Parts: sequence; C-alpha cells; structure tokens
Amino acid sequence: MVHSFEAKVGIDKFPIIIGHGIFNELISFIKTYNKENIFIICDSYFKKSKGFHNQELSFFNEYNHVFINGGVESKTLPNFEKIIKILSQNNIARDGLLISIGGGVIGDLCAFTASCYQRGIDFIHIPTTTTAMIDSSIGGKTGLNFLEQVNLIGSYYNPKAIFMDLRFLDSLEKRDYYSGICEAIKMSITSDSNMFNRYLEVNNLVHRKDKTILEEIIYWSSITKLKHVTSDFKEKSTRLILNYGHTFGQAIETHYGLYQEKLKHGEAVALGITVAAKLSDLLFNTTNSKNIWEKTNEILLKYNLPNKFKKLGTKDIPETSQLIKNIINDKKRISNGNRYIICESIGKADIHLIKNDEYIIKAFNCLYE
Amino acid sequence: MVHSFEAKVGIDKFPIIIGHGIFNELISFIKTYNKENIFIICDSYFKKSKGFHNQELSFFNEYNHVFINGGVESKTLPNFEKIIKILSQNNIARDGLLISIGGGVIGDLCAFTASCYQRGIDFIHIPTTTTAMIDSSIGGKTGLNFLEQVNLIGSYYNPKAIFMDLRFLDSLEKRDYYSGICEAIKMSITSDSNMFNRYLEVNNLVHRKDKTILEEIIYWSSITKLKHVTSDFKEKSTRLILNYGHTFGQAIETHYGLYQEKLKHGEAVALGITVAAKLSDLLFNTTNSKNIWEKTNEILLKYNLPNKFKKLGTKDIPETSQLIKNIINDKKRISNGNRYIICESIGKADIHLIKNDEYIIKAFNCLYE
Repeated sequence: MVHSFEAKVGIDKFPIIIGHGIFNELISFIKTYNKENIFIICDSYFKKSKGFHNQELSFFNEYNHVFINGGVESKTLPNFEKIIKILSQNNIARDGLLISIGGGVIGDLCAFTASCYQRGIDFIHIPTTTTAMIDSSIGGKTGLNFLEQVNLIGSYYNPKAIFMDLRFLDSLEKRDYYSGICEAIKMSITSDSNMFNRYLEVNNLVHRKDKTILEEIIYWSSITKLKHVTSDFKEKSTRLILNYGHTFGQAIETHYGLYQEKLKHGEAVALGITVAAKLSDLLFNTTNSKNIWEKTNEILLKYNLPNKFKKLGTKDIPETSQLIKNIINDKKRISNGNRYIICESIGKADIHLIKNDEYIIKAFNCLYE
Repeated sequence: MVHSFEAKVGIDKFPIIIGHGIFNELISFIKTYNKENIFIICDSYFKKSKGFHNQELSFFNEYNHVFINGGVESKTLPNFEKIIKILSQNNIARDGLLISIGGGVIGDLCAFTASCYQRGIDFIHIPTTTTAMIDSSIGGKTGLNFLEQVNLIGSYYNPKAIFMDLRFLDSLEKRDYYSGICEAIKMSITSDSNMFNRYLEVNNLVHRKDKTILEEIIYWSSITKLKHVTSDFKEKSTRLILNYGHTFGQAIETHYGLYQEKLKHGEAVALGITVAAKLSDLLFNTTNSKNIWEKTNEILLKYNLPNKFKKLGTKDIPETSQLIKNIINDKKRISNGNRYIICESIGKADIHLIKNDEYIIKAFNCLYE
C-alpha cells in the first residue's frame, strides 16, 4: 500500500509519498523538469564502480549525479561549496531541481545548498534511513555543522516533494535503524499515548522490518511531526515540543563530540528522553501509578536503545557537572533561558521553566546506575 | 522631515524610516534587544583608529562591532565564514540582532549571513549609499559572488527594519552617488512617466545633494520597488520589470569582470537601459514623437551617467559578438529563454519574447557611436 498526502509547512504545500516501491511516482514527478536541469546528490553507500548499485536505483544513472559520503563529517561548508561548484559547472539553472538520496546528513547538506544556490532552487528529498524518514526530512530545517556546533549554519527551506521508499531500510545497519525509530518513540511520549502503547506491542514486527508496520510508523511520524511544524515553522512555540529530551541529549553529544562512533544521534536522544522522563517524574509524579521514567526504560529496552551510560560500551563517561556546564552553554547560545519540555503524563508534554539545577542533576543521575 | 512607513514583502512586514538624522528612531528600535545580543558589521569607510569616525556615529561604539571593506571583493564565502565565526565567538544567540552599516556589498553580505546564522537571526539594514537606499536594501535579496558569478549564492530574507539616514550621502564619492541615482531613473522609465519628467527637472538639486529632493527620490524609489516586489517576492512575474536593461548591463559587466574600477554597477545599468531603450524603439516606435532612446540619453547626460562606451574613459571596449555570447550564456544559466523587458513608452514596460538576435545587435550598436 502507498500513503500519499499533502504537507503544509509555513506557506508551502508539497506531497509526501510513503511506500514499498514508489519509484514510478517519483519518476512521474521528476519528468516535469527538463532532464539537463536535474542534479542528484546521493550517499556513496549506494555507489558501485559505475553508478547506482542495484537494479531499482539504476534509472538514476540517466541523470547527472555525484556521490558524497553520508557520514556526519560531510555536513560542512567545503561540501556546500563543492556542490555549488558542481551545480554551476553542470549549468543547473534557477528553475532546476536538486535531488538528495540519503540519510539525515546528505538531506541537510543538500537542502541547505538548494536553499542558497541562485537564491533557492527546487529540491526533492529521497530519505533512505529511519532517521531521515521519521524526522530530518520533514519540517524544512536544513543545516551545516561549523565550529563543532551542530547546524550553526542553516535555513528553513521546504522541498517540492518527499519520496520515502521503504526498500531503502532493508539494508540499513542495525544501530542506525533503531536510532531513527527512537525519534518516533520520542514523539509518541510527548504527543500520543495510544501510539506509545502500540510501540510497546509491535517491537517484534519492527525487528523483522515488517513492511506494513514500518509504513504505519513512518506515516504516523510524518503527520505527527507536521502537526507540530505546520503552524510554527520557525520554532517559536508548539514545534519546541519536538525538542523533548533534546537539551540533555545534546549535552551528552557535546561530550563525545561530533565525529565519533560511540554515540549515534538517536542514541543520544534515547539517553536524553530518559533524563527528561526522570525530570518529569520528579516534578509531576505524585501517584503510585507506573511512572514515565519506568515506561521510557521499558520501551527503550524493547528497541535496543540505551537508557544508561553503561549500555554505550565505552569507559568514557561524562561527569554530571560537565553535562550541566554544557547545558548552560547551550541555553546561553540559544537564549531560551531555563525552558524545558516536560511530560505530565505519556502523550502530554508542555514547556516549563526550571530555575533549580538540582532537579536536573538528580534527573541525570538515572543514567549512571 | 522624516518618512516612516510599513513595507510588506512576501509574508513579512517591517518599517522603513527615511530622513536626515534619524538615529533616535534607530536607537529606540535597537533597545528592544539585549545589548550583548547585538552585533554590528560596518563598512571600514567609517572607521577611525578607535572605532566610528564621527560624532553622530559614535554611539555605535557601545555595541560589539567589526569593520569590513565595502568593495565588491568582500561579497565572498570567506567573509561569510568570518562573520559566522565572529557571531559565534560573541555568543550572539538565535534571538540576537545583526546590524549592517554600509553600501550594497556590506548589506548583501550581512543579510545573507543573518539568513543562515542559526537558521536566521534578526537583521537591520542601515544603507549608506544611494545604491543601497534606492535599490539593494529593499526587496529581501541577499547574495555572495562565487566562481566569478554575481549572487550565485544567496537567499530571500527580509530585515526587521531599514533606517536610511541621508547624512551618509554627504560624503559619498561622485561616481558612486550617480550610480545609485541611475537605479531610480531606471524605475521611472519602466513605471512612472511623471517621475521621469520630474527627474529631468531636478538634476541641479540632486547635484547639490539637496536634502528635500534626496528624501523625495529615496522615498519614491522605496515604494516603487516595493510595489514590484510585494506580490512577487521570489521573482516569478512583476518583479522582473525591475530587471529592465539588466541583461545588457550584465553582459557588459561580464566583459569587464567583477573586481575593477572601469565600470560601476550603476554605470553598467546606464549602458544597459540605453540598449533597452534602443531595442524598445526598434520594436515599438512608429511615430515621430521623441523616442525612448533619445529621452534616455537626455536624462543620463543630466546625471553624469554613461550612454556610450567612449564615456567610460577606457580603450578596453567589448565587441558586440562577445556581448551577445555573454547574453546567451546568461539566459542559459537562468533558464528564461528569450524574454526581455521592453518599454512601449516611458512609464510602461512589459516582458516580451525576442527570438531574433539581429534586433539585439542593432540595439547594442548605439553604444559604439
């Protein structure tokens, strides 16, 4: 089955197509552009010696394309400059089309480049990872890392279409696969208790990469993220709910640095939402019912996601004092004071002001058990 | 007197304040931001050994600032990178403010940087030249030159306010002064025959830099440009009228190259609108009335602007065949076929398709007399 619907983000409208084998729809869309005016940037994961590596992708060889490494070290100004040069050398015009095939890194890099080349050309996302399908391709945020800061350079820029072909997930490496799933789990905790309970049940289907459940999850994630984004494109209010666990996860990511394998972004999110859950309990849980932290632990374990530092398999573990410092620096940089996203119960999150660091320190402690 | 009005561009609204001595209004506006969260980039023309060089500007010394050379060679990626670094080092946050004080180059560079730093921070234009007040600060176009191409990298991004203080024009060098005035003349030819006739009359007042006439011209230019831009932010239709003479002027600019003194941008516009006028006459002038080309020559002479190559004071004059080649390359790059802006009469311009190069060649010939 194929899910096809219209997204409204800011003043833009564009189609999102989700399914297992949707290249016919993709080809119809692309054919509205002049062939010489189309350029494809693809994660080098899909490269064979002479172009795209499998039969399904081989039609891309007809179009001008380059391969770029999809690792986080690729989201840089030099790669931006490189793509601008390539587009110019290939005479891609203002009414041209840039297509990105890859995970979050390739998507962010290409979307930013498309937003700046000749003041913005048309752009299509073809996300190939759970992270990109569930989270990064939706919402129009583009970015480059610079000065060791995530997305210090970036823009808000919507694609003309997003094509999510689930076949890309078949070959996705296990840690990357679950890292992306974590973003869906996170959204269910803040926004949809029914879906949270469903995630608790379907973990075995997800493990098997069952097509139907993956399409359901990715469709649910897309529309849930869009609900937060549509009315708040530039992140002034409701969109901030999506940052649940973000402050804590980012403080941990800052410790490990941008370019390493110890901690994937989705794993940092897992640790971040564990801390956020603990903090939520400290502030709101006055009953004897099963608390948010316990439920968060339960679901993370079902999806092979870390809920404690010892799960990371490294002896390099940050001290709480360092994490608090990172948070203070981060909050200063984004000038949002002491606002945190807190859950009153599963499915119900809001922004709260927390002036007392003691709560934060206590919340972090749960990662050290 | 002070002109103060609200501009609507795309989905944004912001104030434009025009007058002789308007820093009180500017200071009131700036004070709505946290002082540590404000950064000023200023053309180094205004630098003395220890900061801003005259008494009126000295209050800027209270704020964090750097000076950057305002020449066209500054609109580069390395300067973009430099400013991003400076903003980050000064902990300018997402709700911070970048202020640009300078001509078109500083304005374009800063506006682009503001549009990308942390996905966009607030920005104020303080244009200091006729070109920046009449043309470049209005309309939200930002840009960097790259690979010898003007604005190959850029964005559409509106400021939060524009403050045009006419005192800056007192010290403006003569060629730069008239280059900017040329943009106003150009708009009158395409859009307002009454204003064109007024420009024919007031040249002596403009020569003397009379405050009242400058305020009138800059106010008229602002609202006229806004009329073209408001409903067509991303240049799909009416905004293209502003490109009258642009194709020809740019073909000439391409010959001389980006970084030279032989030809200022406004002077290229002057030559460009001369060719456009000739072309308009070739297509439309069937009467014996004074034609557009004659009228264009008349007004350019009154404002010390070139209407022929020999006025440039250089022996390096491009051949027509080269200019035609440049146009073909340019048209290919922006993929707009053979569309040209043509005037049927002074004050009335439209987009026309011209498939026959002979008309273009004939029109160019008027520059060689």
